[in-house]
Amino acid sequence: MRIVGVEYDGEVQVANLSPDGARLTVVAGLREFWSDPEAWLRRPPAGGTVPVGEARLVPPVLPGAQVLCVGLNYVEHAAEGSYRDEELPVFPTLFARWPRSLTVGGAEIPVPATEDGLDWEGEIVAWVGRTLVDADPGEALAAVVGYSTFNDVTARRAQKLTSQWTLGKNADRSGPLGPLVPAADVGDLRDGLGVRTRVNGVTVQEGSTSDMVHHVGETLAHISRTVTLRPGDLLATGTPSGVGYARTPPWLLRPGDVVEVEVERLGVLRNTIVGNEHRSRSLSRTAGREGAV
Amino acid sequence: MRIVGVEYDGEVQVANLSPDGARLTVVAGLREFWSDPEAWLRRPPAGGTVPVGEARLVPPVLPGAQVLCVGLNYVEHAAEGSYRDEELPVFPTLFARWPRSLTVGGAEIPVPATEDGLDWEGEIVAWVGRTLVDADPGEALAAVVGYSTFNDVTARRAQKLTSQWTLGKNADRSGPLGPLVPAADVGDLRDGLGVRTRVNGVTVQEGSTSDMVHHVGETLAHISRTVTLRPGDLLATGTPSGVGYARTPPWLLRPGDVVEVEVERLGVLRNTIVGNEHRSRSLSRTAGREGAV
Repeated sequence: MRIVGVEYDGEVQVANLSPDGARLTVVAGLREFWSDPEAWLRRPPAGGTVPVGEARLVPPVLPGAQVLCVGLNYVEHAAEGSYRDEELPVFPTLFARWPRSLTVGGAEIPVPATEDGLDWEGEIVAWVGRTLVDADPGEALAAVVGYSTFNDVTARRAQKLTSQWTLGKNADRSGPLGPLVPAADVGDLRDGLGVRTRVNGVTVQEGSTSDMVHHVGETLAHISRTVTLRPGDLLATGTPSGVGYARTPPWLLRPGDVVEVEVERLGVLRNTIVGNEHRSRSLSRTAGREGAV
Repeated sequence: MRIVGVEYDGEVQVANLSPDGARLTVVAGLREFWSDPEAWLRRPPAGGTVPVGEARLVPPVLPGAQVLCVGLNYVEHAAEGSYRDEELPVFPTLFARWPRSLTVGGAEIPVPATEDGLDWEGEIVAWVGRTLVDADPGEALAAVVGYSTFNDVTARRAQKLTSQWTLGKNADRSGPLGPLVPAADVGDLRDGLGVRTRVNGVTVQEGSTSDMVHHVGETLAHISRTVTLRPGDLLATGTPSGVGYARTPPWLLRPGDVVEVEVERLGVLRNTIVGNEHRSRSLSRTAGREGAV
């Protein structure tokens, strides 16, 4: 299964993509799905079927979901940037995205007028499927219902203006998210999934999830000692080395560039960069009718 | 007017508190209210009236709202804590809360098992009423529809584990929020509203909003250059000096303590601290039937 969100008349449905990516079959309403995601992923989708080209794709994310992101979670990435002279943190460095910053593959990502460009961060998101309070790592890992390809596109100037990264990590439509692939089809990230990022066809990041510092179960357990996790919450697991700002000279995404993140078993997520004039007053997280996933 | 949220059968209504605080009159549904908050605040509430004691009070916050918080925004507070040896940031230090961390006056706030206690941060929240993209400070300030008393209750150990504060700023039910008071009844924070925090009746913080470093219009304009703001988004404006962890010896809130934040023209927000066993698997941001505001 590859689970996506589809918007009809302002309501989001959860749907399954056909193997050839051409059609969608509705699984359940968004809230209904996240009230028992494990059960919905077990049964065959039974709703209506539509061609992808006629659907308005959105991330299958609850508006109130908590999107927790781990920074500096690959040794070589921690060593390449602003934090290279500091010791590797003993605890996962957690920052926040609001769901409104998320979008889908095919969406256009605008560069704010205050930035020289945007930076790529290819990575993987884990989807929480059960409530977690004071969980142990085994319980927390068992609560993950799926994984998605993710690009944690970053407005570096905004991120580095102060000690806190929040502003630079929540730029408009800066978090494209691929379809959710059930955990059973993915296996354990510790066994090593390849993560690759390409800009205009050139490979800029190439890593393996076996090099993560803080693994998914441990990180979710750690979070659950302070913040209760709910079904539909997301954990972005961090990016390997090769980001743009740490290069000599720096390399940032500019309007017209195409950025792709490819993760083994999860697929390819492709987005185009556009100018600040594409930031807009309308509230849309979609890729439009032609939205590719 | 003093605007609160009331939950009936899982749906949130926006309601107005009577001057004596005994009754509520429904204004509109939550989404309906935030689709045009200025219009709803102009007309007299016309919905049903119920005694406060029979209502389940919740924050009148959209699940997908962005809650932006400014740290180190009063000179004397910046000088008392971990950042005292650094220069005052030129830009506002922004961190994120998810709306799920918010609650109301009267709610019990649990101390996570990993914390020695919780710290108080009495402050003021500004509510955004219009969409803001690349706004100037005047446009941004004019978009503020109201203000509320807020306690940015902090899990200091979680906050200080890494460079990023997110985890310690989103503990369960750690963000109590008072009623929204329309901006027209509050005036300009630069003119100086008194902010006081009391613990078990002892005054621990006493400041004036005239001492803020980054004011509301400037901060919202700054944010809007990277992140589009929408009606219903919130800005927590930072706390004055006098927090607990920076004292000698440190003083933190423990189960049984009562913490109050009082802001001129906005009122008093009172909460009780409880133990970790009150963190729970049920999703409730309410104070229960007896919830005071």
